[in-house]
Amino acid sequence: MNPPARRISIIEVGPRDGLQSEPEILSTEAKIEFIRRAIDAGVRALEVTSFVHPKRVPQMADAEAVIAALPKRSDVRYIGLVLNRKGFERARDAGLGEIGMAVVASDTYNQRNQGVPTSESVKAWLDIAREARAAGMRANVMISSAFGCPFEGDVPLGRVLDLAEQVMVGEPVELGIADSIGVGVPAQVTAMIGAIRERWPGVPVRCHFHNTRNTGLANAQAALDAGATSLDASIGGIGGCPFAPAATCNIPTDDLLYLLDRSGVTTGVSLEKIVETSLWLQQQLGRSTPAMLPKAGIFPKVAEQLRTAS
Amino acid sequence: MNPPARRISIIEVGPRDGLQSEPEILSTEAKIEFIRRAIDAGVRALEVTSFVHPKRVPQMADAEAVIAALPKRSDVRYIGLVLNRKGFERARDAGLGEIGMAVVASDTYNQRNQGVPTSESVKAWLDIAREARAAGMRANVMISSAFGCPFEGDVPLGRVLDLAEQVMVGEPVELGIADSIGVGVPAQVTAMIGAIRERWPGVPVRCHFHNTRNTGLANAQAALDAGATSLDASIGGIGGCPFAPAATCNIPTDDLLYLLDRSGVTTGVSLEKIVETSLWLQQQLGRSTPAMLPKAGIFPKVAEQLRTAS
Repeated sequence: MNPPARRISIIEVGPRDGLQSEPEILSTEAKIEFIRRAIDAGVRALEVTSFVHPKRVPQMADAEAVIAALPKRSDVRYIGLVLNRKGFERARDAGLGEIGMAVVASDTYNQRNQGVPTSESVKAWLDIAREARAAGMRANVMISSAFGCPFEGDVPLGRVLDLAEQVMVGEPVELGIADSIGVGVPAQVTAMIGAIRERWPGVPVRCHFHNTRNTGLANAQAALDAGATSLDASIGGIGGCPFAPAATCNIPTDDLLYLLDRSGVTTGVSLEKIVETSLWLQQQLGRSTPAMLPKAGIFPKVAEQLRTAS
Repeated sequence: MNPPARRISIIEVGPRDGLQSEPEILSTEAKIEFIRRAIDAGVRALEVTSFVHPKRVPQMADAEAVIAALPKRSDVRYIGLVLNRKGFERARDAGLGEIGMAVVASDTYNQRNQGVPTSESVKAWLDIAREARAAGMRANVMISSAFGCPFEGDVPLGRVLDLAEQVMVGEPVELGIADSIGVGVPAQVTAMIGAIRERWPGVPVRCHFHNTRNTGLANAQAALDAGATSLDASIGGIGGCPFAPAATCNIPTDDLLYLLDRSGVTTGVSLEKIVETSLWLQQQLGRSTPAMLPKAGIFPKVAEQLRTAS
C-alpha cells in the first residue's frame, strides 16, 4: 500500500458529463459562467464540452461557441471529449488545447455508445492522439466501464489492463479509468490502480466515478490512497450517462472537496466557492442537485453558526 | 496499515436509530416484522429499541412490548439503548440480553442529549455496566460525536481517547465510536481506530456512521481496513438524530452490503433479502428512503436482466 497522497487534482466535469445528462439545456453564456465560477474557485482542469453530433447530445450543440468564449487562461486545462475523427477535427479547428477520448472495456457498450467495436475505438484513439500531438494539442484517454458493464456484467481486471496496454501506445498525457455506471467498489479501485502503476510507474492516473450505488466517495478515497493523480467530479453531482441505464450522478465536487479538505489533502480549490457555485447551479437548473454538502453545510462552520445563533 | 479484514459484522440499527428519527410511528407488529425480516436476511445483531421517556421519543414508547415480542433466538444479539438508570432498569425488567449506552465526546451535546455533563454519563455507564453484568446482561458503550460536535465543532482525537480510557473501565463487550452528525472523513476513522487498537489491542471496535455529507461509506471502508469488528447500518438508510441539527440518515445497510459483497468481505447477510426488506420498509413508511441500491439495482444482476430484456 502506498502512503496516502497529500495532493490531488480535481477535474471538473460538470460542464460536460454533468450537463449532457441533464434535461435542461443551459445557454452558452450560463455554461461559460459555470466554468468561470469553477476557475474562480481554484479549479485548473475542466471538461468543457464534447464534440458529438448535436442530434445525439443536443446539450453540447454549442461546443464551438463554448470554446470561443472560454476565459483565456494558460494555467487552466480545457478538455473537450471527442469520440471520432470528425469530433477531433472540430475540436482542433475550434482551437482547443486538449482532447479526451474514451474506449469502452466491453464491446457491447462500445458499440452502443460509439457505434463501433472497442478495437475500432482504440485505432481511432491512436490515430487521433498522433494527430493531436502534431497539432500541438494534448490528448488523454479513458477506459470506460472499467468496473462493470451494464450489458456484459463483470469486467475482468485483465481486460482493462489489456486495453490499457493498447491505448498507452498513443502516449496519453494521463490514463483514465471510469466507473461509468457506478458499480465499482474500493477493493477494485485499489487493485486496478495498483496494477496500472506497477506496469506504468510514471503515468498519471485519472479516475472517474459515479455515485450510483453510494460507493462514489469511497472509491475516490481508495483512488487517492492508491496514488491516482486526478479525480473527476461535478459541482452539485449533476450528470450521469444518457446511454447507461440507471446511471446517476457524478461524484459531487462539493462532497469530494469536503472529504479532501477535512483530510488535509491539498487541491487548490475553495470549498466555500464550490458550494456557492453549486447553489448558483441549482438556480440555473431550477431544482435541487444530488450533492449533500450544500444541504448539510460545511463543518465546522455549522457549529460556529449555531453557537452564534443560540 | 493493517491488511483489510475479510469479515465484519453488521449491526442493524434501523428499528432504533432509524425509526426513532422518522416522523411515522410504526406499530409494534410492524417493528417486529422489520426485525424478523432482518434476521431472516442473516443479520445477527440489532438495536431493537431504546428505553427513553416516551414524551421525548414517542417512536420508542412500546419498548417493553417490542422486547416481549422478539423472536426467541439465542444466536441473535438484541440491543436496547439506555441513557440512565431508569432506562437500564426497564431494559433489565423487560428481560433484554444486552444494553448499549452512549457518552458524548462534547459536554454541550451530552448536556442537550442526556441532560447531564459527559462526566455524569460516564459515571452512569460504569454503574450500569456493573449491574448489567451482575444481572447476566451484556453491556456496550459508544462514544458519540467522536468526529465532531454540532455545538462545539472539532473534537480532538485526544478527547475521544481520554473518554475511551474512562469508559473502558466498565469492560464493555465492544467499544463504539459514532459520527453522530455525519462530519467524519476516512483519515479520521483510520487515526481513531488505529489509536484505539494500539491502546486496547483486543477490544472489538464498533463504528456508527451517518451519511450526512456523502462520506458514510468511505468511512465504513476505512473502518473495515483499520480493523473495526462491526458496523452499524440501517436498512433503507432511514434515521438520523432528532437532537442533532442537519443530521441525516444512517449509512444504508443495502448500500454497505453491496460494497462489502463486491469486495469479497463476509457478513453472513443476504443482499437480496435486505433489498426486499428495504422495499417492504418503503411501503410501511409510505415513501422512498435514502438507500441508493434499491433504485439502481444489484450489479451484475441488472446486466443479466437487461440482457434478457434486450
